[in-house]
Amino acid sequence: MTSHRTPLSELESGTPFESRHIGPDAGAQAKMLAQVGYGSLDELTAAAVPEVIRSTERLRLPEARSEAEVLAELRSLARRNQVLHSMIGLGYYGTVTPAVILRNVLENPAWYTAYTPYQPEISQGRLEALLNFQTVVSDLTGLPTAGASLLDEPTAAAEAMALSRRVGKVGKSGGDVFLVDADCLPQTIAVLRTRAEPTGVEVVAADLSDGIPEELAGRGGVFGVLLQYPGASGAVRDQRRVIEQAHELGAVVTVAADLLALTLLTSPGELGADIAVGSSQRFGVPMGFGGPHAGYMSVREKFARSLPGRLVGVSKDVDGEQAYRLALQTREQHIRREKATSNICTAQVLLAVMAGMYAAYHGPDGLAAIARRTHRYATLLAAGLRDGGVEIVHERFFDTVTARVPGRAAEITERAREAGINVRQVDADHIGIACDETTGREQLTAVWRAFGVTVAGDLDALDAAVGQDVLPDDLLRTDEYLTHPVFHEHRSETAMLRYLRRLADRDYALDRGMIPLGSCTMKLNATTEMEPVTWPEFGALHPFAPAEQAEGYLTLIRELEERLAEVTGYDKVSLQPNAGSQGELAGLLAVRAYHRANGAPQRTVCLIPSSAHGTNAASAVMAGMKVVVVKTSDNGDVDVADLHAKIEQHGDELAVLMVTYPSTHGVFEEHITEVCAAVHDAGGQVYVDGANLNALLGLARPGRFGADVSHLNLHKTFCIPHGGGGPGVGPIGVRAHLAPYLPNHPLQPAAGPETGIGPVSGAPWGSAGILPISWAYVRLMGAEGLRRATQVAVLSANYIAKRLEPHYPVLYTGPNGLVAHECIIDVRPLTKQTGVSIDDVAKRLIDYGFHAPTMSFPVAGTLMIEPTESEDLTEIDRFCEAMIAIRAEIEKVGTEEWDAQDNPLRNAPHTAAMLTGEWRQGYGREEAVFPVGVRATDKYWPPVRRIDGAYGDRNLVCSCPPMAEYEAG
Amino acid sequence: MTSHRTPLSELESGTPFESRHIGPDAGAQAKMLAQVGYGSLDELTAAAVPEVIRSTERLRLPEARSEAEVLAELRSLARRNQVLHSMIGLGYYGTVTPAVILRNVLENPAWYTAYTPYQPEISQGRLEALLNFQTVVSDLTGLPTAGASLLDEPTAAAEAMALSRRVGKVGKSGGDVFLVDADCLPQTIAVLRTRAEPTGVEVVAADLSDGIPEELAGRGGVFGVLLQYPGASGAVRDQRRVIEQAHELGAVVTVAADLLALTLLTSPGELGADIAVGSSQRFGVPMGFGGPHAGYMSVREKFARSLPGRLVGVSKDVDGEQAYRLALQTREQHIRREKATSNICTAQVLLAVMAGMYAAYHGPDGLAAIARRTHRYATLLAAGLRDGGVEIVHERFFDTVTARVPGRAAEITERAREAGINVRQVDADHIGIACDETTGREQLTAVWRAFGVTVAGDLDALDAAVGQDVLPDDLLRTDEYLTHPVFHEHRSETAMLRYLRRLADRDYALDRGMIPLGSCTMKLNATTEMEPVTWPEFGALHPFAPAEQAEGYLTLIRELEERLAEVTGYDKVSLQPNAGSQGELAGLLAVRAYHRANGAPQRTVCLIPSSAHGTNAASAVMAGMKVVVVKTSDNGDVDVADLHAKIEQHGDELAVLMVTYPSTHGVFEEHITEVCAAVHDAGGQVYVDGANLNALLGLARPGRFGADVSHLNLHKTFCIPHGGGGPGVGPIGVRAHLAPYLPNHPLQPAAGPETGIGPVSGAPWGSAGILPISWAYVRLMGAEGLRRATQVAVLSANYIAKRLEPHYPVLYTGPNGLVAHECIIDVRPLTKQTGVSIDDVAKRLIDYGFHAPTMSFPVAGTLMIEPTESEDLTEIDRFCEAMIAIRAEIEKVGTEEWDAQDNPLRNAPHTAAMLTGEWRQGYGREEAVFPVGVRATDKYWPPVRRIDGAYGDRNLVCSCPPMAEYEAG
Repeated sequence: MTSHRTPLSELESGTPFESRHIGPDAGAQAKMLAQVGYGSLDELTAAAVPEVIRSTERLRLPEARSEAEVLAELRSLARRNQVLHSMIGLGYYGTVTPAVILRNVLENPAWYTAYTPYQPEISQGRLEALLNFQTVVSDLTGLPTAGASLLDEPTAAAEAMALSRRVGKVGKSGGDVFLVDADCLPQTIAVLRTRAEPTGVEVVAADLSDGIPEELAGRGGVFGVLLQYPGASGAVRDQRRVIEQAHELGAVVTVAADLLALTLLTSPGELGADIAVGSSQRFGVPMGFGGPHAGYMSVREKFARSLPGRLVGVSKDVDGEQAYRLALQTREQHIRREKATSNICTAQVLLAVMAGMYAAYHGPDGLAAIARRTHRYATLLAAGLRDGGVEIVHERFFDTVTARVPGRAAEITERAREAGINVRQVDADHIGIACDETTGREQLTAVWRAFGVTVAGDLDALDAAVGQDVLPDDLLRTDEYLTHPVFHEHRSETAMLRYLRRLADRDYALDRGMIPLGSCTMKLNATTEMEPVTWPEFGALHPFAPAEQAEGYLTLIRELEERLAEVTGYDKVSLQPNAGSQGELAGLLAVRAYHRANGAPQRTVCLIPSSAHGTNAASAVMAGMKVVVVKTSDNGDVDVADLHAKIEQHGDELAVLMVTYPSTHGVFEEHITEVCAAVHDAGGQVYVDGANLNALLGLARPGRFGADVSHLNLHKTFCIPHGGGGPGVGPIGVRAHLAPYLPNHPLQPAAGPETGIGPVSGAPWGSAGILPISWAYVRLMGAEGLRRATQVAVLSANYIAKRLEPHYPVLYTGPNGLVAHECIIDVRPLTKQTGVSIDDVAKRLIDYGFHAPTMSFPVAGTLMIEPTESEDLTEIDRFCEAMIAIRAEIEKVGTEEWDAQDNPLRNAPHTAAMLTGEWRQGYGREEAVFPVGVRATDKYWPPVRRIDGAYGDRNLVCSCPPMAEYEAG
Repeated sequence: MTSHRTPLSELESGTPFESRHIGPDAGAQAKMLAQVGYGSLDELTAAAVPEVIRSTERLRLPEARSEAEVLAELRSLARRNQVLHSMIGLGYYGTVTPAVILRNVLENPAWYTAYTPYQPEISQGRLEALLNFQTVVSDLTGLPTAGASLLDEPTAAAEAMALSRRVGKVGKSGGDVFLVDADCLPQTIAVLRTRAEPTGVEVVAADLSDGIPEELAGRGGVFGVLLQYPGASGAVRDQRRVIEQAHELGAVVTVAADLLALTLLTSPGELGADIAVGSSQRFGVPMGFGGPHAGYMSVREKFARSLPGRLVGVSKDVDGEQAYRLALQTREQHIRREKATSNICTAQVLLAVMAGMYAAYHGPDGLAAIARRTHRYATLLAAGLRDGGVEIVHERFFDTVTARVPGRAAEITERAREAGINVRQVDADHIGIACDETTGREQLTAVWRAFGVTVAGDLDALDAAVGQDVLPDDLLRTDEYLTHPVFHEHRSETAMLRYLRRLADRDYALDRGMIPLGSCTMKLNATTEMEPVTWPEFGALHPFAPAEQAEGYLTLIRELEERLAEVTGYDKVSLQPNAGSQGELAGLLAVRAYHRANGAPQRTVCLIPSSAHGTNAASAVMAGMKVVVVKTSDNGDVDVADLHAKIEQHGDELAVLMVTYPSTHGVFEEHITEVCAAVHDAGGQVYVDGANLNALLGLARPGRFGADVSHLNLHKTFCIPHGGGGPGVGPIGVRAHLAPYLPNHPLQPAAGPETGIGPVSGAPWGSAGILPISWAYVRLMGAEGLRRATQVAVLSANYIAKRLEPHYPVLYTGPNGLVAHECIIDVRPLTKQTGVSIDDVAKRLIDYGFHAPTMSFPVAGTLMIEPTESEDLTEIDRFCEAMIAIRAEIEKVGTEEWDAQDNPLRNAPHTAAMLTGEWRQGYGREEAVFPVGVRATDKYWPPVRRIDGAYGDRNLVCSCPPMAEYEAG
């Protein structure tokens, strides 16, 4: 052994992370290459990727590092963040994540690697958790229907604005004024402006504390009103009157409300609001320098069917058992496209689950106790300041005290900082101080000291002396909330632990097996990437903390921006958009701003191929554009002739072409550069949707082959876990000419260019808290690793295509008969012959222990399969064998060996419960639940049978159903 | 709401941790008290606990703190530990725990809250993981049978010593010399001396590097020889000759071997060794300031049935399917008592699982690559030193270099420390430097600099120049190892993640439901308590790092010792014993030393009630005592008359009475103080086994009601998780007169008194790495919380007794018909009437979703139930209802409604696989798998049916079975 000596440097390379991330090892790759018919990965990708777009230069990224080294680097970045006690407020508060929830949800792959619950039969656990969240929101806001979360509070407010316009009578009849109380969160007002402008809405901010001023009421056109409750200043006002006034004007009223305050205060619903929005961050979700957190929206019953985003509802399965699923999906953009209610397709599921569990763990009494303590601290804080001669601006507040200190605000803010506390310097004369769950006596003392106030005696004496809390008596909450047993049964850690496990066990996530969803890139979310997310140095930073406290974050953000720019070939990247949809919007707004700055405001036509993601069209509409569909040719590519025709037709109204590359058909279109050139020649811009970037990384760079702007999905290519349907991160990359139009932020100049389009998210860098994941991935892989990952992703897709082709036609291929990183197999001919539907195949895959591929996108009746580079050959083969076995099962239906109605496909998925009743099926129990390749020992049992979605849509129930129904179940 | 004002201090108490830890809330407690017939917890415990022992003073412990506060305190303690790069070696090495294993095993309650796999049907996952560990050990050591882990390397060596004496011909014929090579680890030699002395063995340490010296060989009586491979000095020697010599003397040869080195070196088995022992720490288990880590032992085939500790073997279930279970349990001390092969009852399962997974994740090639890199660094380190004129003592080494630096060792050690590196100062003239998986170029440079050596050129140049590794050619390993597929299939993170999940899913742990094991105290292991365990500041400290680097640890250890002393009423506590069994031994050795110091060496009789834990007797024998059994009276108490008779009979030979309190029958014996007095009057000492401390904490203190010494089980009362069968921690508390005889440590004077009995564990403070758990528990609960936990534990046990009494007789009760914290129900009459055995009931509970209570201990044919304070009333009721339903099932057998052989009890547990085959049972499928209270949705499915243990014992297979058997399965 010593005789053949390996150089030290080679010994040092050890087992690179790349070989942990990429499933197939060298031997497996060779086997797969042989099947596909190529000699090496380079040969394969040379054949698959059109030469005209292929990168030749190596990406300029730092060398790959080991997991231990990257963790050490991250720890050193973490140490460069200074965790002060932030009392800044403005929608972000210190909170204590119960350890049992932290470990068993946020740090548990069974929760964080799950996909959006589009296959509800294998998602009952997280659907129940989301229903809990919806119940929390709906109970606390006093409005009956709450969605399964939105991206953050400001975008929820923007969605409320759009909803108000869409459903209210003033909006429907052309009213275009959205009235915002001046005491709303500044970032909310800014996001509203970004979102309003392109759609022709005027956002008017005014002091509504004494009602709607005459002049505003008189001018008409006010389709909606937004109030903050309590206000950004902390003030708690009785809004009944202004709500009444707004209603008299025909406006829809939204109240942005703090959930913790609502445990003590009369609910917005009871006050008369039509819509409530807000954030659930302070329900146990770390601030994370801005996100991710679950925004929320709840509405009056009449608006339930217009709610943007996801909504979980109760329905039943074919046996009549209660079952949950996403309700009213027909509202969503993948169905309604440019007519969708919103472009939102991600929720913040993981964070909504946490917030819901936080409420379940504390229960209504526990939540109210936290609120009361928080309020008392604020009350005492104010009393102490007042005793010390400081003027307190508002008499009535919940947790936030605004102090008037003429000319001294900066100095006091600085003194507080030196004492380890961030307060909010409102302006030169005012300071805001917000109390929260983490406030303690020492913070009060420190704040007083910063103000130069000495409070005589101890705090208990002051507490006794103060006597009264300061919430307005006529706003005290009197109704009960969170009465459902779920908020009372899991109050010991043991009970909560088991509840979390039980729910997780009902679900199928990446920790069980492959999730071959085309276009969703369900790759490994490595533990090393995930670890820093729950370190306090990343979790506990307030998004508006001074930049010098966030050196670690800012370094990480700058490096990630630069590295993403490098890999995509763009000049500049913004990490602000907190979902792909927000990235799309931001990118299109940049294009819009560019055209306007260049004297071409008429350029508003957005060309979109018919095969595009539905979000594209919805985003274009939100960016004030007109969607014009370009045909797709038979081979799945953009129909170039039609493209030219449309370009011609729209002339100097052409704003942008929005195209996915490789195409949504999973194909590297050969004429992409030609397409880009044609658009550019006509004065348009090219937007390449980065959804399929996993097929390009290290092989080609959109910013170099003709695109001007792209959004990336960090939750796809860059390893942020899907979290059961969010968080997502959707940064955009742009070429230099669009860089001045990237998002920025009113409270953080460093977040974007002064000339930018305004904020699209509430926080300066969006979901900063999870950016360490993508940073770590790039750092771990290096240029070579990223390239190899792409190559293996392409290899695996082609391997599957080759293995399945004899059994199912592969619908589209590109150069040399190759697909890109996914392949579409066509089930339509089989459906026609046998009646076995695409749904039957998808549900039958559950019996085989798999999550179904993407169904009927981009082509109805097909399955789009994306294995990603992370699945190893064993798992890929297991999947292929399941698909082949299912093909044989379809055959049995075709030959009438099996009854057309009574067969394992139609009856799939099969539950354990079915096995013990009378067996009426014309096939065997074993065939049903243990088909080829499934071992009883390790079987995943779906908890329910096939779910009747339509029933639930007809009988909409979107909060926890009464226990009687469980008992019946 | 504001009108009724709660004082701030009350608001601040929030939801105390106590209410998360204790399952039943106030409402539930009231309901349970009503059932038991008492008005309050205090009334109940006043009635249950004999007044004569009840504490009246409140425990002097710091006030309870919130979880957030305790985490903050722990972080501040952690910061007081300085993590240097430790190159000290001596059996403890830096290692990289793969993140996927860290998160999904060590931080995963599904693994860490599991119990010892005595119910194999619901433990197949961890049994497979342990089989992997055994295969690693057996493959690498070249000896066919390896156990499922021992406590650490030194105690494994001590077990080998005992084994050698027991099975070797010299030992059997009275030989009493154990010969130890001087290059063995110093802590191993010290532990051997502690263990040898009381049993009359002489440990002779000598330089065996040139064979066994004449004079030693000639004197005879050498029953065993221990060699270290590589030596503590790093030297790699060919031990074939000395092994041969030893065999010629009739001695059994043990080689303490480093597993990483064995990936490159000829195995001990091939060299001729009979036994191999060692540590698997460097296979991915953090050093943790000394532990816990899995020690190992493997043996030649002929010794397999004499192996101490647990051994996993392959057997089959009633359907003939392959299944794992603990093999040869009849060796264990709960069966053989004073004739047991060892007193070991805990293994280090959680750590053995990690080490086995580390091997599976790296595979043989990956492990060898780590070994080669480690070796190369050591080679280059030595070469650099030599080039700089430093003398290197040994030519041939693996990872540890010993340098001779006459008179300069202290100064160089200090300089290295300043550069962030701990080296080993062997003596004034020698320094040892150990390389490991975490060594990098910077460490080499820093060490050279500390030696004042400058190495010309870069390391690659040196690497090229050095040319050769320095392992002896004739010791290079040539055989293959880890060829089983399990070491090749889980090499991507995705594959490993799924493997870990799959195994965890086969098992039942506290995260699924109650584990009501009497005497095992399966209470909540709170996440907050667990968190610090995986912080690097606690994980990465070498046990022999200088004390000034471990300020955080030492503070925590001191505080925990003091607080444990306070709660038990003792004067002094030692945390060194790393399992309850080691605590027993240490306590008895203290008693022995005390008698000897007081001129009464003849006091060697240990009185043990017949109902005692088997370990008691085994430990007494190991402590050189003679076990005399005291009868148990009909009510389960010690038979006082017989006790007096025995005391009389043994006169001044009486050493100690060993008694469990409350008794192993779960009863507070009323005459305990009288018993203690009688023993004291006769000159004996009283040892109270702390196994049942969960019934006493805050109510009574053994150190005050008459006991002189106790061991505690931190993995019972003090929340260290059972980890699937280890780690355990077994500190002892003693009254002042025994304090001089606590364990100490040769390498760490602060670890115990100079007059101590020597070390019982390899590390100064045993399993220091998990002590933060118990520290946190005490900190979180405070005096009141601990007391209330005990009260609720007693309440819950009595509630169960009352609920089950109409259905099963409760065997023993104490004052007022009350039990303590557990109750024994008698199944014998039912067995007699119906033939339904205790096993049938236990296995049937699996179908109901429960882990069985303790079976047939302390009385055959009974079940001992201990709910602990952490189970809430819902779960307790669910359990009671299952037991009542089972009683009704037994009735059906009794009335012959069900066949005596073919009934759900006899056939339990039922698997999912059974449901699809032909159903031959005389009862329904539903009755079988979904009995009352079991929902199909959340059913736990056992992976195998009832296991035939005897078959496996007859056909012993203790490493991973060939794949063919899986396929057949």
